[in-house]
Amino acid sequence: MDIGYNAGNYDIVVVGAGHAGCEAALAASRMGYKTLMLTLTLDAIAILPCNPSIGGTGKGHLVREIDALGGEMGKNIDKAFIQSKMLNTAKGPAVHSLRAQADKIKYHIEMKKTLENQNNLLIKQGEVIDLITREDKVQGIVTRTGAVYYSKAVILATGVYLKGRVYLGEVNYESGPNGLFPANYLSEKLKELGCNMRRFKTGTPARIHKDTIDFSKMSIHAGDEEVIPFSFLNDELKIDQQPCWLTRTTAETQKVIKENINRSAMYRGDMESVGPRYCPSIEDKIVRFHEKPSHQLFIEPEGLDTKEMYLQGMSTSLPEEVQEAMIKTVIGLENAKIMRPAYAIEYDCIDPTQLKPSLETKHINNLFCAGQFNGSSGYEEAAAQGLMAAINAVRKLQEKEPFVLDRSEAYIGVLIDDLVTKGTNEPYRMMTSRAEYRLVLRQDNADLRLTTKGYEIGLVTEERYNKYLNKKQQIEKEMERLKKTTVSPEKANPILEEIDSTPIKTGIALYDLLKRPEVSYKEILAIDENKPKDLSKDAEKQCEIVIKYEGYIDKQLKQIDQFKKLEKKKLSEEINYSDIEGLRLEARQKLNSIKPLSVGQASRISGVSPADISVLLIYLEQKRRKKGGQ
Amino acid sequence: MDIGYNAGNYDIVVVGAGHAGCEAALAASRMGYKTLMLTLTLDAIAILPCNPSIGGTGKGHLVREIDALGGEMGKNIDKAFIQSKMLNTAKGPAVHSLRAQADKIKYHIEMKKTLENQNNLLIKQGEVIDLITREDKVQGIVTRTGAVYYSKAVILATGVYLKGRVYLGEVNYESGPNGLFPANYLSEKLKELGCNMRRFKTGTPARIHKDTIDFSKMSIHAGDEEVIPFSFLNDELKIDQQPCWLTRTTAETQKVIKENINRSAMYRGDMESVGPRYCPSIEDKIVRFHEKPSHQLFIEPEGLDTKEMYLQGMSTSLPEEVQEAMIKTVIGLENAKIMRPAYAIEYDCIDPTQLKPSLETKHINNLFCAGQFNGSSGYEEAAAQGLMAAINAVRKLQEKEPFVLDRSEAYIGVLIDDLVTKGTNEPYRMMTSRAEYRLVLRQDNADLRLTTKGYEIGLVTEERYNKYLNKKQQIEKEMERLKKTTVSPEKANPILEEIDSTPIKTGIALYDLLKRPEVSYKEILAIDENKPKDLSKDAEKQCEIVIKYEGYIDKQLKQIDQFKKLEKKKLSEEINYSDIEGLRLEARQKLNSIKPLSVGQASRISGVSPADISVLLIYLEQKRRKKGGQ
Repeated sequence: MDIGYNAGNYDIVVVGAGHAGCEAALAASRMGYKTLMLTLTLDAIAILPCNPSIGGTGKGHLVREIDALGGEMGKNIDKAFIQSKMLNTAKGPAVHSLRAQADKIKYHIEMKKTLENQNNLLIKQGEVIDLITREDKVQGIVTRTGAVYYSKAVILATGVYLKGRVYLGEVNYESGPNGLFPANYLSEKLKELGCNMRRFKTGTPARIHKDTIDFSKMSIHAGDEEVIPFSFLNDELKIDQQPCWLTRTTAETQKVIKENINRSAMYRGDMESVGPRYCPSIEDKIVRFHEKPSHQLFIEPEGLDTKEMYLQGMSTSLPEEVQEAMIKTVIGLENAKIMRPAYAIEYDCIDPTQLKPSLETKHINNLFCAGQFNGSSGYEEAAAQGLMAAINAVRKLQEKEPFVLDRSEAYIGVLIDDLVTKGTNEPYRMMTSRAEYRLVLRQDNADLRLTTKGYEIGLVTEERYNKYLNKKQQIEKEMERLKKTTVSPEKANPILEEIDSTPIKTGIALYDLLKRPEVSYKEILAIDENKPKDLSKDAEKQCEIVIKYEGYIDKQLKQIDQFKKLEKKKLSEEINYSDIEGLRLEARQKLNSIKPLSVGQASRISGVSPADISVLLIYLEQKRRKKGGQ
Repeated sequence: MDIGYNAGNYDIVVVGAGHAGCEAALAASRMGYKTLMLTLTLDAIAILPCNPSIGGTGKGHLVREIDALGGEMGKNIDKAFIQSKMLNTAKGPAVHSLRAQADKIKYHIEMKKTLENQNNLLIKQGEVIDLITREDKVQGIVTRTGAVYYSKAVILATGVYLKGRVYLGEVNYESGPNGLFPANYLSEKLKELGCNMRRFKTGTPARIHKDTIDFSKMSIHAGDEEVIPFSFLNDELKIDQQPCWLTRTTAETQKVIKENINRSAMYRGDMESVGPRYCPSIEDKIVRFHEKPSHQLFIEPEGLDTKEMYLQGMSTSLPEEVQEAMIKTVIGLENAKIMRPAYAIEYDCIDPTQLKPSLETKHINNLFCAGQFNGSSGYEEAAAQGLMAAINAVRKLQEKEPFVLDRSEAYIGVLIDDLVTKGTNEPYRMMTSRAEYRLVLRQDNADLRLTTKGYEIGLVTEERYNKYLNKKQQIEKEMERLKKTTVSPEKANPILEEIDSTPIKTGIALYDLLKRPEVSYKEILAIDENKPKDLSKDAEKQCEIVIKYEGYIDKQLKQIDQFKKLEKKKLSEEINYSDIEGLRLEARQKLNSIKPLSVGQASRISGVSPADISVLLIYLEQKRRKKGGQ
């Protein structure tokens, strides 16, 4: 059969140029593999079709982890941000999360530039309509214009483009995000290849013209005075920070929505798909929290050169007519003009339990998947998976073990483990509450947790690695010094009195002094003559956090030890769980389907009970003895 | 019938946000009229989907004229250019043409910014699917999402979006330019309303990755040392000029194309439409000029932040496979990688003879049309029409006479007169050869020709008008001075000898000295002590040209007098040419169809003979006498 012409051979083909595709393409090519990235249009590379921001609670952690592993998202937002803010600083350091408003078009321009300048990488326009497979292994892809690109691995990162359909009330039509073409052919082919496809949805709010907003009725939401960069490679960034604004819906908003709820595409029943629970539409919020008289909304700029403003918190699938009426009921938006209406979009994605923890599909070898295609939501979740998919695609070609981060190592580990082990029935969004070891998985220590791994993989440059080693050494030396340096009551007490801290009776190490919540480096500066002059702010912060939360962290580290025991008990992909006596039927089915890599992973599969885990442990012990006995 | 909801009232609705739409929207709103511009996506405002440049032979004249009338294109390219060059400087001043390479994304960003900051203007996403008319008058439009915008006038500037279909060899699919959505509904509605629609095509070459080009085999094509701005408002612009490169096709290119000519969408017969004669595809050039062993190609950057390079001269509808082979046969492109393939695009447009010289449709009142929709090709041609359509839409609402530039006043006049009087069977491109009075219609005097008109219309600001008056005064004063200032042989001859110019015997005016081709201001500087210090370069240049070409210009001005005589003989739209005895049948039909505004316009209608014109003149004379006799 004539499938097309031979358009060349690549090691890896990446399908899609969103946040997953960009990280995948860069990681694969940076690891030395000849990579082709195909996209419907080069003008949509790394676009931000929804909120104009990167990071936020949980998501900021992901960006820091991507950065520590040598990914691009952190570096790119550092080039394109217009406001920066560390969220949740009133709470503990585990939930501190960095968030930056992005200049959307600048974000696109910078990422495209990086891709274009990357060795081993070609980015090219083309719609992928088919996969070439042979003996359950992917061999390449076919584009709509008849080009066949042969490759050793393929990474699918199709976002919301597969059979995309846009809804505004009663009106709906085929479309990708942001008024772009959908990809209408590939998902049928994936079904033919045995992929279990599903339909998810997401939505975006309207964009408003800035000059039609009455900001005097809103409260300003400014950036931090001091910018903390996303990327470990950047020490200091100075910009003219742009403000956001906070406003609220009114009783009138509720009224307009309630009167028109039957015209919402979601409530009409036109859409069968499932939307993101933690990013609900305004009509969802009104219905679900009907007792709430008002909902807060943020007004965020879409860039420096545009007057388009994003209306965070008001995504909807109501008709344009109702949107116009609804927006005018918001405080300060009485005369607002919509430039782009809100819409919901429905798209095909895969059931992620069909994936291995390496993000390779279980039934087609060397086919990796990442991003919204895997059922996640969010730019950062997508980027994290893109990076991991590429690392694992390369390692597969290198015949190395997959690179899997466990739940105690990274939010990335939590994200992927949740997706491939538990699956998801709605677009999956990262949150700090999903991480059981979040006191250890902080955004401030992502570099300490992951840089060495990134270096070993080959993605972290010497420059970054040396900078990291330097920081690590600084911290270690400083911790040592703080433990060794004792201050006398005569010296310490005047200072302690000043800040209402209990005086000491005998000499005390600075280390122990810093354990007190009310004491920080700032307070002890006068009595800490030997503090190293070159101690970076970053290292200083790290010492403080580790010292202050030592007790909690130690407790969590012990839990992690326990957790690791079950993670270390490896389960071969070859096991047929139907053969293991004592397992309940549901557990057998689920285990055969998920094929967990460890007993730990098995224990997190819904439908596998603690009793089933005991059976598995006994099975492994018997196997071990049998082996030992031979 | 429920056509949608009332989304508001505007004076003028502009459909489309390309170069015609942008000028139209800005002109209408700047003249004080409440304007709405609708576009399929805000991200495609003022995109340059084909060549990354503004201006060039003939087209540069249009940009200068647009600028003189208070339009935006000149100002915008001055913000976004990366190379500037005055073309044809070896030839006479009539064909000097300014051309600038544009940073495509910057051009878009700047124009969008200008639109967003314009009073009286709202730009909004929405696909127009229907027109509302009542008693042969347009009343508004309807969008796909059910919004009805009522308006007093509508300007259609739909570019190549109407029923757009893209072709790459055997592959073709519905698409607008640059991978954007087409508009599939509106043209059927226009047909229903009696518009005579036709199908034109155009094409664009591939974009190549800069790093895969061997520039050492090409010759560099640098910008001018001194940048001459497009806009009269800018005196000096300094940028780091980017180079272009010149290369050639080879015998091998010819071979590849000839072997595959039957796979070209154009030659396969898939496309019934007509392409632009003066912008032919490479296969067209190979077929039409088969004796030519090689064709020149320019490699032009698409912007500062991208490595995409435009391959000027190689547009094609050959399949992607053949494109890949063909490009590698070009000198220096042996290893070139395509980032975006070339394609041809077919689209619906109107027969422009259905338009009045004001660009209003003859059969639907207050419906104006501009740009590629009228059968033209090129960004500049589109912008010129957009500007004129908006001026005339506003004047219609003001109940004023249409603003029509005649062929002796502007290239804009030539363009529109050609379109509406002669019609066009292929995408119409401006060229200096189309202007019979081109010695008068120079790019250097566009401001002198048109600023006052723009001021009277209300588009030229006080700032611009005063600057223009100042320049005009400077020129007049200087011309006076040059005529009055005489130099003696003793003073002049040493200088004349130096430049091999015939010595003078008696005193001579500087004016007469400057008539000599070998003498310019530079040569007479030493003997011209009273030259005004504040004489601008621009004014100086103007004096030189007018003095040097005085004889030719005078001759042309006399021709223009003749021309104007026939233009002044007005023909009422009410005349029924079937009633005029002596006219040939064809002339009657054509005159009834075109409804020329003057005998001059009538004389340019194809099918109207000089004998018919004599009949018309007699008819007018009889009518005049009858009136006088009453």
